[in-house]
Amino acid sequence: MPGIITLLTDFGLADGYVAAMKGVILGLNPQAVIVDVTHEVPPQDVGYAAYVLATVFAHFPPGTVHVAVVDPGVGSARAGVAVQGAEQYSVAPDNGVLSHVIAAGHATAVRLSEPRFWRPEPSRTFHGRDIFAPVAAHLSLGVPLAALGEPLADLVRLPRSEPERRPDGAWVVHVIHVDRFGNLITDLRPDPAWLDRLAGAQVGSFVINAVAGTYADVPSRSPAILTGSGGYLEIAVRDGSAAAEFQAGVGDQVLLFPL
Amino acid sequence: MPGIITLLTDFGLADGYVAAMKGVILGLNPQAVIVDVTHEVPPQDVGYAAYVLATVFAHFPPGTVHVAVVDPGVGSARAGVAVQGAEQYSVAPDNGVLSHVIAAGHATAVRLSEPRFWRPEPSRTFHGRDIFAPVAAHLSLGVPLAALGEPLADLVRLPRSEPERRPDGAWVVHVIHVDRFGNLITDLRPDPAWLDRLAGAQVGSFVINAVAGTYADVPSRSPAILTGSGGYLEIAVRDGSAAAEFQAGVGDQVLLFPL
Amino acid sequence: MPGIITLLTDFGLADGYVAAMKGVILGLNPQAVIVDVTHEVPPQDVGYAAYVLATVFAHFPPGTVHVAVVDPGVGSARAGVAVQGAEQYSVAPDNGVLSHVIAAGHATAVRLSEPRFWRPEPSRTFHGRDIFAPVAAHLSLGVPLAALGEPLADLVRLPRSEPERRPDGAWVVHVIHVDRFGNLITDLRPDPAWLDRLAGAQVGSFVINAVAGTYADVPSRSPAILTGSGGYLEIAVRDGSAAAEFQAGVGDQVLLFPL
Repeated sequence: MPGIITLLTDFGLADGYVAAMKGVILGLNPQAVIVDVTHEVPPQDVGYAAYVLATVFAHFPPGTVHVAVVDPGVGSARAGVAVQGAEQYSVAPDNGVLSHVIAAGHATAVRLSEPRFWRPEPSRTFHGRDIFAPVAAHLSLGVPLAALGEPLADLVRLPRSEPERRPDGAWVVHVIHVDRFGNLITDLRPDPAWLDRLAGAQVGSFVINAVAGTYADVPSRSPAILTGSGGYLEIAVRDGSAAAEFQAGVGDQVLLFPL
Repeated sequence: MPGIITLLTDFGLADGYVAAMKGVILGLNPQAVIVDVTHEVPPQDVGYAAYVLATVFAHFPPGTVHVAVVDPGVGSARAGVAVQGAEQYSVAPDNGVLSHVIAAGHATAVRLSEPRFWRPEPSRTFHGRDIFAPVAAHLSLGVPLAALGEPLADLVRLPRSEPERRPDGAWVVHVIHVDRFGNLITDLRPDPAWLDRLAGAQVGSFVINAVAGTYADVPSRSPAILTGSGGYLEIAVRDGSAAAEFQAGVGDQVLLFPL
Repeated sequence: MPGIITLLTDFGLADGYVAAMKGVILGLNPQAVIVDVTHEVPPQDVGYAAYVLATVFAHFPPGTVHVAVVDPGVGSARAGVAVQGAEQYSVAPDNGVLSHVIAAGHATAVRLSEPRFWRPEPSRTFHGRDIFAPVAAHLSLGVPLAALGEPLADLVRLPRSEPERRPDGAWVVHVIHVDRFGNLITDLRPDPAWLDRLAGAQVGSFVINAVAGTYADVPSRSPAILTGSGGYLEIAVRDGSAAAEFQAGVGDQVLLFPL
């Protein structure tokens, strides 16, 4: 077992914070295979991190340890947690960053309270390096979850938007993420049959009629409604950016009109 | 054999797309050594990706698998391919992204048509994760190229600019890449003796006379004509940016005046 | 021993330069574990690189090889060096980039002069790929430092700012780094007792009174004076950017007023 550890932070790539975490991990487990998820989470944006983690979590093999450090409360009374669920481990501050990957009731969680698995004299400003990284390394070496701290009944969860049906039959869905291509990813996970019965969408004052299977199904620079790679309905502009074209972002509504 | 797999995409680093590919690879080959080439290819810029891949390809050991996913036609009729040539493997959409590394006639190519080497039920929007990543993992595990699909006679190739000689003896060369330092990299691969006979260059209305061996051969903030690390003639400004200074970019002409 | 090699450059992530170095390393040592420190050093900013290297150096296990390539003098008479000190190795141009990690008199240095440990016919513009990467790979394989070149008595060192005490008892400290969060990191390493006796700080015309243990000790959007994760006194704004709020950057003064 190679001991895969993924890292997801808002530390950016221009400082040494991420490398310091990797050095600590490799010092404890020289065989660890470390994978960066992203370090470009907007500073302190826990919701962004929770979404991205959810898009990658299931693609890693059983036993992977996911470390998510977007931690505006570092050094405060907020707990640090380690969680076992869906055949994987997660290590993070208990601030909601795990709420999209850990379904309520289907995971075992502990509050990190055993300093023997931390760096000595941890700082109050960088638990990523001093607590979460060494805890992840110990998990990857086979330390059982229960050794890391006392059981925790439940985790902090972020409020999560849900698609809503209007009296006139239209659906109101919400943009939960804008990716690098400007795709507007919504909170609806349609099944193919449902999508077949969709007439169109509206973003702000823009109306989109093309329901597509992939980007190349519409002409260049044209908008499309489709199911993205995470299973969510998204609004895209082929070879362009729906976010820029429709002036839309996270939290905005998209209206969907069934046939 | 460690099984080196390189990844080159236009996915950026702020989403989970690259990590999803890595999770899929490590799920199939936990010993794979994954190297990022770049994920900052401008969205859908196949030519940019083809150039960058050519700058790194030859520096990897035999048996390396290069995965290049800049794929505006994902899910359309464009083929996915795996190619063996120059002692290395490449996996990519057949859209020209491999045209600078695979010399015509010197490679064996197959069209990816064997779904048993893909993720089950691949999406139509993310073949990087669902087809190219698992195919690369299988190649790194020793699956022979021929098992991945039927032979393909030739690959899509990008048009490639060539230096042109004018009747007056001057050469017209073209900027094919601008790197992070603002160096204007052209399509001419000069030999040292040729460079010794160069009098100067012109970019737009700017004239550059300094032919140099390295950046430090000219004063700070001064321009230089030199052979860059990829063997191409480039226009640089020491401690500055030739692209900014001379308002030039990809596709622009540079005139070269031999003595 | 896995052979950890860290890379720190100003090459950015959009070109193939970093991957070319990795290909060269893996060609020589397929077992090398390569860790990126950062490649987002501002072009030619040796001081920035020296600071970031110092923040990660001590967190890596003994025997790690750190490669730092911010090299405005590449191909000139400046030396390339390999250094052994503090149980680790460093490979870099001799331009000061190692001056924060190698304490004078406590390291053994050689000038790289043995081409058999380089790529054949190294370019004059990319010693990162052609000299420093292969030298690091050889070190990670157990080649002794002394084999790489002749001993070097001392290394180039950057001037380093120092806190100064004014006649009125106030301290003048200097911003040496601004991190991703806009924290202003200074050249003072206070001990906890010293910080307890601090009344406040001044940045430009802004006065800050809150001495804190961590960011969450002050209200959101409020400034704080605290000791950061590298042990340096820093000025932060919780959930904001001190650099933006106080219009301050590297080289600026911060005044500290003891009780």
